[in-house]
Amino acid sequence: MKLQVTQEHLNQALNSVGRVANTRNTLPILSNVLIKTANNRLSLAATNLDIAIVHYIGAKIDQEGAITVPARLMQEFISSLPSGVIELELENNKLKIATDQYNSTINGIVADDFPVMPTISEGKKWTIDSVLLKKGLQQVVFAASSDETRQVLTGVYLHTKDSKLFIAATDSYRLAERDLGKNTQDVSILVPANAMQDLLRVMGDYEGEVNVTHDGQQVLFQVGDVELTARLVEGTYPDYQKLIPSDFSAQIKLKKADLNNVTKVSSLFARESAGSVTIELKEKESTLSICSIASQLGENVATAKGSVGGDGSITLNSRYLLDALGALNGEEVFFGFNGKLEPTILKDPKDNNYKHVIMPLKS
Amino acid sequence: MKLQVTQEHLNQALNSVGRVANTRNTLPILSNVLIKTANNRLSLAATNLDIAIVHYIGAKIDQEGAITVPARLMQEFISSLPSGVIELELENNKLKIATDQYNSTINGIVADDFPVMPTISEGKKWTIDSVLLKKGLQQVVFAASSDETRQVLTGVYLHTKDSKLFIAATDSYRLAERDLGKNTQDVSILVPANAMQDLLRVMGDYEGEVNVTHDGQQVLFQVGDVELTARLVEGTYPDYQKLIPSDFSAQIKLKKADLNNVTKVSSLFARESAGSVTIELKEKESTLSICSIASQLGENVATAKGSVGGDGSITLNSRYLLDALGALNGEEVFFGFNGKLEPTILKDPKDNNYKHVIMPLKS
Repeated sequence: MKLQVTQEHLNQALNSVGRVANTRNTLPILSNVLIKTANNRLSLAATNLDIAIVHYIGAKIDQEGAITVPARLMQEFISSLPSGVIELELENNKLKIATDQYNSTINGIVADDFPVMPTISEGKKWTIDSVLLKKGLQQVVFAASSDETRQVLTGVYLHTKDSKLFIAATDSYRLAERDLGKNTQDVSILVPANAMQDLLRVMGDYEGEVNVTHDGQQVLFQVGDVELTARLVEGTYPDYQKLIPSDFSAQIKLKKADLNNVTKVSSLFARESAGSVTIELKEKESTLSICSIASQLGENVATAKGSVGGDGSITLNSRYLLDALGALNGEEVFFGFNGKLEPTILKDPKDNNYKHVIMPLKS
Repeated sequence: MKLQVTQEHLNQALNSVGRVANTRNTLPILSNVLIKTANNRLSLAATNLDIAIVHYIGAKIDQEGAITVPARLMQEFISSLPSGVIELELENNKLKIATDQYNSTINGIVADDFPVMPTISEGKKWTIDSVLLKKGLQQVVFAASSDETRQVLTGVYLHTKDSKLFIAATDSYRLAERDLGKNTQDVSILVPANAMQDLLRVMGDYEGEVNVTHDGQQVLFQVGDVELTARLVEGTYPDYQKLIPSDFSAQIKLKKADLNNVTKVSSLFARESAGSVTIELKEKESTLSICSIASQLGENVATAKGSVGGDGSITLNSRYLLDALGALNGEEVFFGFNGKLEPTILKDPKDNNYKHVIMPLKS
């Protein structure tokens, strides 16, 4: 292998794939990045066996070849180099990296040992606008569970209903769903939330179509010159849509910044009680008040104005409330609830495409 | 106690004093901040028994009084409040904090139990420009030792010689000294490096005179409305000035950014060898080359151009080299050394007021 590549391209590709390579893995080669010539391009690839990312960049290839080298060292090293042309040359499994000022050798492991994820031979194909997908992912992915014992909930659910694509995630305490618009395919896949986090990172500022291909086992996202393949989560996703309430015994519309501020302040006093805060709506006074009590430290009551319908109170985890407010678009927020044990909802009153449900705490 | 104060002032004062309050301390009251009315002003104070900070702010006092409350909660709470007037009122050791929107109660501990550092009754007094002191501190404080078994080296040494004030710190591996200009007092005090870090934080963007008062036990820095008192480190500081070399068998003058870049890149390959890199100067080629070898990962040689006098090589810890370069002013750096075991020096070729000495590693 002998080739020339720009520092900018190589750095970008190493950043895309690098985070999937994992030094804590039991297989040492999984902490490496695979560097391989391919039809006048250079491909860089990394995998943790569940997720694989390949990034193609332009290169001037003098001699074909492939090698794997430690991803972290390679990434840190290339990112430290000045911009300009870098020469890569392979000699006895040692990758020689040269610029005007720098001459380095990184010891590699032969490419034959690098695990390859199976390709999706027959699958469903559809495309989605990257900006829409990115926004939708940001609004739901944090609601997925990180508890590996409830594997189904560690996935982000992409599914179609009445020719519309929905993306949803829940950890059973809160649920986020976003309508991603028209899709005539019959989609129902569960993508691991951490693969979605990687996809968000890979998409970065990319604007254009994302090509999606999936069979029963895997999904492939193509974002420009980057391909992300992930093993799907197995299992049946709960029929979550029936949990989303549409009628409320008490509801308020107020400035999102106001609700965010009073919740933040209240949460400081809610540490002893694991984030528990009690929200009370008073229609006559047009107020929402939020109350937290720390038996040792003290207590807090904060009030915000809004247009209120109905009276009532409910106890929630303030962290979930702050997460939800962070995910909502718009200047205003609608918050509605029913009985003390029934799901509450937060949404932008001007946008019905995103819904965020929080289950109350027993008060 | 009953008073009105602005959120901006209270927040600023809590930020100044808060970091000295420590929740890990064995005395619970040391994690509290003392809030006390004093002559139409409000004083906020915190101490860890080695360092005490008091910040005075303006307030409209309706009723005198004093209380201590948990510093972290108070700081986070006040910083979350919107700007404007805050009312504080004490009732049975409970501090009531009210604004338009917020009503909070923080449980306190009576002020009588709060430890007070002794005042300096008779001591030396001098002043120094805050910008000069700040720059000098930033250039030396990181070179102090954090090893508590060598207590003298955990201090920053302020001393006069020939009517000039010097500030110096060393951990015995490297040494930084800055000339702070004329001072006719006879000064020789050892201030704990962490007190100096707090002083840097307290000085912030303050511009003006800093008043310094010290006796044999304590030092007081007055920075505007803030007073920082620190217990001095006991012991005799080493006669470090004789260690600073002035003649060199090999020396180079080059762009600071160039030396910084080649050192950074080399340090990536120096992790296995605890940061060890070897620098070689070649007069004929006008080059500095820096070499690091990681037996497992690979190796790196990087080269930079400069005006070189004499040939030679020396092995240093790359982290110390990067620290020194970060502390130097100017576009260029002078680097000189002698034998393999003798101290090396880095300085700005245009500024003789700051000197940074690094001891070589055995190569």
